[in-house]
Formats: sequence, C-alpha cells, structure tokens
Amino acid sequence: MSVDWLALEKKAKAWIYEAAGMVKQALANPIQIECKSNPNDLVTEVDRAIESFFYQKIQAEFPSHYFLGEEGIADELDSLTGTVWILDPIDGTMNFIHQKYNFAISLGIFHEGQGMIGLIYDVMNDELFHAVRDHGAYINNEAIVPVKERPLHESIIGLNAKWLIEEKNPYKNPLMALVRDVRSIRSYGSAAIEIAYVAADRLDGYISVNLSPWDYAAGIILLEEVGCKASTFRGEPLDFLSASTVIVGKPQLHKEMVSSYVGEEL
Amino acid sequence: MSVDWLALEKKAKAWIYEAAGMVKQALANPIQIECKSNPNDLVTEVDRAIESFFYQKIQAEFPSHYFLGEEGIADELDSLTGTVWILDPIDGTMNFIHQKYNFAISLGIFHEGQGMIGLIYDVMNDELFHAVRDHGAYINNEAIVPVKERPLHESIIGLNAKWLIEEKNPYKNPLMALVRDVRSIRSYGSAAIEIAYVAADRLDGYISVNLSPWDYAAGIILLEEVGCKASTFRGEPLDFLSASTVIVGKPQLHKEMVSSYVGEEL
Repeated sequence: MSVDWLALEKKAKAWIYEAAGMVKQALANPIQIECKSNPNDLVTEVDRAIESFFYQKIQAEFPSHYFLGEEGIADELDSLTGTVWILDPIDGTMNFIHQKYNFAISLGIFHEGQGMIGLIYDVMNDELFHAVRDHGAYINNEAIVPVKERPLHESIIGLNAKWLIEEKNPYKNPLMALVRDVRSIRSYGSAAIEIAYVAADRLDGYISVNLSPWDYAAGIILLEEVGCKASTFRGEPLDFLSASTVIVGKPQLHKEMVSSYVGEEL
Repeated sequence: MSVDWLALEKKAKAWIYEAAGMVKQALANPIQIECKSNPNDLVTEVDRAIESFFYQKIQAEFPSHYFLGEEGIADELDSLTGTVWILDPIDGTMNFIHQKYNFAISLGIFHEGQGMIGLIYDVMNDELFHAVRDHGAYINNEAIVPVKERPLHESIIGLNAKWLIEEKNPYKNPLMALVRDVRSIRSYGSAAIEIAYVAADRLDGYISVNLSPWDYAAGIILLEEVGCKASTFRGEPLDFLSASTVIVGKPQLHKEMVSSYVGEEL
C-alpha cells in the first residue's frame, strides 16, 4: 500500500504543534539540566519528554515505523529500511536553556532511505519550515521561491566560531580561509534552524565539523526541495546513521566550498 | 522646562512603527544597493529614506534637538550638549539585503550626555526592546527581569568570526582566547540586536572591535536599566561621538573580559 505523504505530513505537523505547546509550558518553570559527553553538551528533562511524546505517538499509530532520536529512547538503527522518523526533540538545547529562544523541533521522515518529509519548527518565532518530497518547501504554508546564487565573496555562511579555535579540529585552516573569503558569518546555535535558513535563502551555506543525523535529517529534505546541496566535507552523501562533517549550500557555492576549502585530503 | 521622557518615548515609538511599515513595504520591491567604505559596507535607498523620515519629524516637532545618524543627513556633532537623537535607520543592513530578516531600527535619545531613551525594533520579529532611564527595560511592554550572572566558561557571547581571521585586527589573539574559554559564540549580524539580546538575557556579552555610536547608542540605555556594563576594550566609557571598540555584558563577566582578555596594552 502506498503512503499518502501529504496526509502523514499533516499528522506530523499537528504533533509538532502539540509538542511545542508542551515546551512553552515547560519554559515557565525551572528546568532540570544535565551534561552528556562534555560540560557544554546539555540535555534537559524537556528534550526527553518531547522525544518520548513522539515515540509513543508513532508506536501507537504506526507500529511498523522505525524511530531514531537524539535522546536514544528507541533502539539503535543499522539501516534506513522501511519508514524511519528521525527526531531532534530540541535542536539548540543550549539556546533553549540560556535564551529560551532560537531552538527547534526537527523531524525528518525517510522511506527506504529517501527523505520524504522535513519539518523544522522554530518554536518561539512560530516559524514552521516544511517540505514533502516533490511538493516544494514552505515557511508557515508560504512557498519558498527557488534560491538565487551569489558568488562566494558575497555569501553569508553559518558557522560557529568555536571551530576556528579548537586545536583538535583538523579543518581549522580551511575554515579560517573560508571565513576570510566570504562576505560574513552568522551563528544561531541550532543546526536545524541554520539549515532551514539556507533553504529559506537567509544564509547561503552552513558548515559544521560534527553533526548527528537528527541535527540535519529534516533540513536535508527542505534543501532538496529548493535545489540546494548537502554532503560531508569530502562531498560524499550523508548517511543519516552516523555523525559526520556537514556542508550545505546553494549548488555552486557548495561545490566551491568543497573543492577549494574543506574537501581536500588532510 | 523639564522634559516628559515617557511622553517622548511614546512619540518615538510611534515613529519607529511608522518607519517599520515603510521598511516592510520597501522589501516587497527590488532594493537599490550601494557600497560605502568597502565592498561589504552596504547602504540602500531604504536606510537613507528612514533616516530622512526621522530627521524631518524631529526637525518639525523638536527644532532645538540635535540629530546624529548613520547616513549623515544632519550636520556632524562635536558634543552631546542638549538633547541628541542618535539613529541607525537600519542596523544590520547586510541582513536586510540578504535575509530580509534580523535587522533593526535603533534609536537612542541623550540629554546633556546622559542616555534617556533607548529603542531597538527588530522589524521582522516584531520585537521592540525599549527603556526610559530609571524606568526599567522592556520587550514589547513586558518587563525584562534583572540579569542573572553566569561564570565565563558557561557564558554565550556575541562575536563575529570575521574578527578572528582579520590580519589587521590587533585584538585577534585575545579574542581567540575568549572564544576558546566561553561556552559558545553566536552571531546575528546586527550590533543593536545583539546588545538588546544581552539586555534581554539571551546573550551574556557582546564584543566588537569597531562600532559607530549609532550601532550602540540605544543599546547602552537598555543595558544600564538591567544593570549590565558597556565600555571600550580598555574599560573606558563610550563617548557616542566617534567609532571605538565595544564590549558589553553582565557586570562580572564584563569586568573579567576586560581585565583578562581585551583590556591589556597591545
């Protein structure tokens, strides 16, 4: 039986708005914070509650679907066979804690390895970036017009300045060169929002030395719908099962950033 | 005769909303762009039209007041004697052009050198950050609660990564050290918005190697009302008549950033 992806998007959107209501309610009270891999890798009870909310909804309505989430509630996946929901319950947890602002619920739905539905909801700005494969990309139901290319030296790139000073980052020098050559740099602290901004033509590109699948799964589907490109720094396809380098952008800019800056053998 | 600053704020707010309407209308059509001092220093016809709008309003209603604006419509000032309006018609012109997003109308009103009214309007997000001296700071009429201090290593700082790669920036190494030591870096591309975010507790501090008075005049008044500090990198007061280094933040953080990072003799 073929899936009605537009109907599934409608359902997923409704769950996102419901989850966003829970998040906003949680912000009214003090939030329990824990560290994960390092003192700046944060998680809250809210991240876990939102992931659990989606997992239970999906299990109840679509028991044959698979689920991959940042907080690891479901089993680990070793392939994208079948229909897979990839969720970041709160992308930009540091912003969520410090700013109560600029964080997103990011949900990508894949079918047999192909991105079908991408939803990124900037909760506090009430902006839902959404796309269904072959149906175009939208912000709050308003169609995003196809992107316009700019030369690299007139481009604005999303990049966290932390990557320019970390001694253990092997891409430090190529990224320094890129920062020098582009028009300017922005950093919003949420990969999902920054990738959505590339799709929405607010940034020309976005780069991170290390992202997990839930950070970019939804965004990649938005990008495809507006003709933007996404890959690892080497120019290889993203696999959605393991962490990797990520570079996204308008087609010519993406190509130039890979070939002239970060794509070389280190 | 003493001035009713709350009444003056009300008038200035009304002009800001009127000007914002003009800006939004202008965004519907192609915008004429020119370069100023360098290829990335941009100005549009809209910046000029908004500055002219305010200048004419002020001349008509308050002929004895002085005016200082980014686009240089009025005469240059050599002191802050009397009542002075300091305007950036569009702070974040690059965002205005590229993103149609994340730019602000920034207006500070000074009296005999003292900041009396600070207004920063993030046009597309419809957020007006506003303060009248001794009356507290607000976002859209909601009071900002006094700031909570965090240690430097848990702080989020606004800083453009461009400052880390510019060979001519003498503060490159201290800024690299600061980026290393803080929790994270954000960059929104509008000094006015970033200073407003410090006042609103969305950032702990903000730093720029080179700003003009209209970039920070309004923000400084917001900061004072929530107990934050602002100075040059040396810790000297800002003078509002010439460009300078600018460092703002919560009191302890500001002190530590100046004393341990950027305040030293170069």
